[in-house]
Amino acid sequence: MPFGFRVLAEDAQTEARTGQLTTTHGVVETPVFMPVGTQATVKTLTPDELRTAGARIILSNTYHLYLRPGSDLINRLGGLHQFMNWDRPILTDSGGFQVFSLSHLRAIDEEGVRFRSHIDGSAHNFTPENVTRIQEELDSDIAMVLDECTSYPVSEEEARISMERTSRWAARAQEVHRRPDQVQFGIVQGGMYPHLREESARQLSALDFPGYAVGGLSVGEPKDIFYAMTAISARALPAHKPRYLMGVGAPEDLFEAVKCGVDMFDCVLQTRLGRNGALLTRSGRINIRNARFREDPGPPDSWCDCYTCRHFTLAYLHHLFRADELLGHRLASLHNVRWTIKLVEEMRDAIRAGSFAAYHQSFLAAYTPPDGTVRDEQRASWAAAHTGK
Amino acid sequence: MPFGFRVLAEDAQTEARTGQLTTTHGVVETPVFMPVGTQATVKTLTPDELRTAGARIILSNTYHLYLRPGSDLINRLGGLHQFMNWDRPILTDSGGFQVFSLSHLRAIDEEGVRFRSHIDGSAHNFTPENVTRIQEELDSDIAMVLDECTSYPVSEEEARISMERTSRWAARAQEVHRRPDQVQFGIVQGGMYPHLREESARQLSALDFPGYAVGGLSVGEPKDIFYAMTAISARALPAHKPRYLMGVGAPEDLFEAVKCGVDMFDCVLQTRLGRNGALLTRSGRINIRNARFREDPGPPDSWCDCYTCRHFTLAYLHHLFRADELLGHRLASLHNVRWTIKLVEEMRDAIRAGSFAAYHQSFLAAYTPPDGTVRDEQRASWAAAHTGK
Repeated sequence: MPFGFRVLAEDAQTEARTGQLTTTHGVVETPVFMPVGTQATVKTLTPDELRTAGARIILSNTYHLYLRPGSDLINRLGGLHQFMNWDRPILTDSGGFQVFSLSHLRAIDEEGVRFRSHIDGSAHNFTPENVTRIQEELDSDIAMVLDECTSYPVSEEEARISMERTSRWAARAQEVHRRPDQVQFGIVQGGMYPHLREESARQLSALDFPGYAVGGLSVGEPKDIFYAMTAISARALPAHKPRYLMGVGAPEDLFEAVKCGVDMFDCVLQTRLGRNGALLTRSGRINIRNARFREDPGPPDSWCDCYTCRHFTLAYLHHLFRADELLGHRLASLHNVRWTIKLVEEMRDAIRAGSFAAYHQSFLAAYTPPDGTVRDEQRASWAAAHTGK
Repeated sequence: MPFGFRVLAEDAQTEARTGQLTTTHGVVETPVFMPVGTQATVKTLTPDELRTAGARIILSNTYHLYLRPGSDLINRLGGLHQFMNWDRPILTDSGGFQVFSLSHLRAIDEEGVRFRSHIDGSAHNFTPENVTRIQEELDSDIAMVLDECTSYPVSEEEARISMERTSRWAARAQEVHRRPDQVQFGIVQGGMYPHLREESARQLSALDFPGYAVGGLSVGEPKDIFYAMTAISARALPAHKPRYLMGVGAPEDLFEAVKCGVDMFDCVLQTRLGRNGALLTRSGRINIRNARFREDPGPPDSWCDCYTCRHFTLAYLHHLFRADELLGHRLASLHNVRWTIKLVEEMRDAIRAGSFAAYHQSFLAAYTPPDGTVRDEQRASWAAAHTGK
């Protein structure tokens, strides 16, 4: 199947839209939430469970797989789909995000970035060219170009230098890309500076990528800035290409981004929360270790149709976490992944039905987001994403 | 269904037999291997996975569930089957083994045993009467009477005192047992002294239990003594009642015990090995972390039909363990459980076909048991069983 994207329905009141993404390994309806399989496994879950949970596409991390077990080894074993037994689409990131947040002793210049592995300290370098080759070896359906990620906050001058380098790297990555069964997305950067984001989107659009990501957001900035940058970045990108907001997946953020016309998302939040005993519900996150669940015979969320909610009580999950049983990690991760996918499925339905704004309102009426510590959690999430834990 | 046991086929050359155990929650073909769900979960696995792996009955631990979350709580939530969502038979042990190997500050007298929780140091006591009541609250299909477990080695005098007390405790447990939908098994003790084991079997047989367990074996004694004691204990028990060898599950031991006419087994070995990256194969145990599996495209064991062997390569499992991914623990545990259940299924087939001795020989010809460290491993297994880890 040649790669393609079609917008199928647009919301009248917002920029939200539904569409269809066609890849070598199948068709994906958008907006879509992509569970993250950092080390060629969505933590604690099997491919069958992901399929049952409704996952149509997953993300895996180039940085981690390049270091261990090696993209060459995965290639010899038939590529990432065969290696991890996942026959639906896979998107691989460029490794840029991980190099800048996780690896040691980074040195960046126009050529690329030199770094030391967080696993064993060994020396490596990423360039637009070798990151393209590594992802071709991995055999993902959608590859990302190497980008430079700035931290938050960053000066306008630094953001500009980084953004312009990201554009030049994008052109180099595009130049060496060969696989006809894989596409590359460019990545919009520009810090929290609207005109830099717009300029980034213009420079990348000139390269005519089949899709575009928005990077460098949800990295600790206030929510209003995060949402404003998402809106500006999305609006500056071509309407007929898919838009992917990298590393975002908190339920309230998904709504805001879909409202801006974003089509794709990935986040480690769902599985990380699950391993920590936090469950997503329509009324907000709950901590299953809390004593109030000790004897609760109900499911985590009666709205949810996941394996966990259909088969187990809050009391049992509470017991598993109190007793340090790994089955608890599994059941909570599975719940959070399915819960999020179902939420996005209902967003698609609402967009098609012309009721997205109403659905968003009904969600907000019931859902209490995490309190002011949310940015700290995002930072923790950022850090967690990169240790592979 | 009223409890029952029927012998369906007997081997001509050995004491091996197949039979059918009828319980409140269904019929179980014997010989049968019971996976262990210490804390109301067979570590890392869901009930659905256990069913698919062919598990017809599981064991759960009275000591652990009494301490956490509490047998009263499990009772209020509908019993252990409902609590853990397992609708097939459950056997609960008496907690005696755990009290003597895991808890702290034990004091034993004729009344029972006082001990401190390994979790929080709180003071508790087990008596034949309250252990019977706790298992009635748990709602297991088969309950065990409280027994006194001696360590190895132990003097004949100590073994006699302990064995005779176990018989008196068995009578007291039987006296207070009420649930008509649950049966109690007595437990043969007697250390490594043949005449004490025979005496124990006689005393318990006089109480006419619907089934009997053999306890106090595989606790560090040499293999030849272990096998001799198993044979003596089994032979001394009534032929028309089920015989259960507690805590045994290494493949080579299963064959030896089935040969002696044992019908039921439980062991934490399968899941403990799995979490440590050891996989059972027809040629012996393998350590999946070993570098020789780094690029191996084959399954763990081509004979095995488990989910892991049907879907994943040794190379992928090697990667999961090297990368500390919990999916590795799951897939290895699932493999070891299914592998063992399939082995016992084939033992049943062989007994019915009159070819058990030949099947045993063909197994031994291919299988290399672990080396002389096996007793150390058994001790580690003993310890592991009791921390619930």
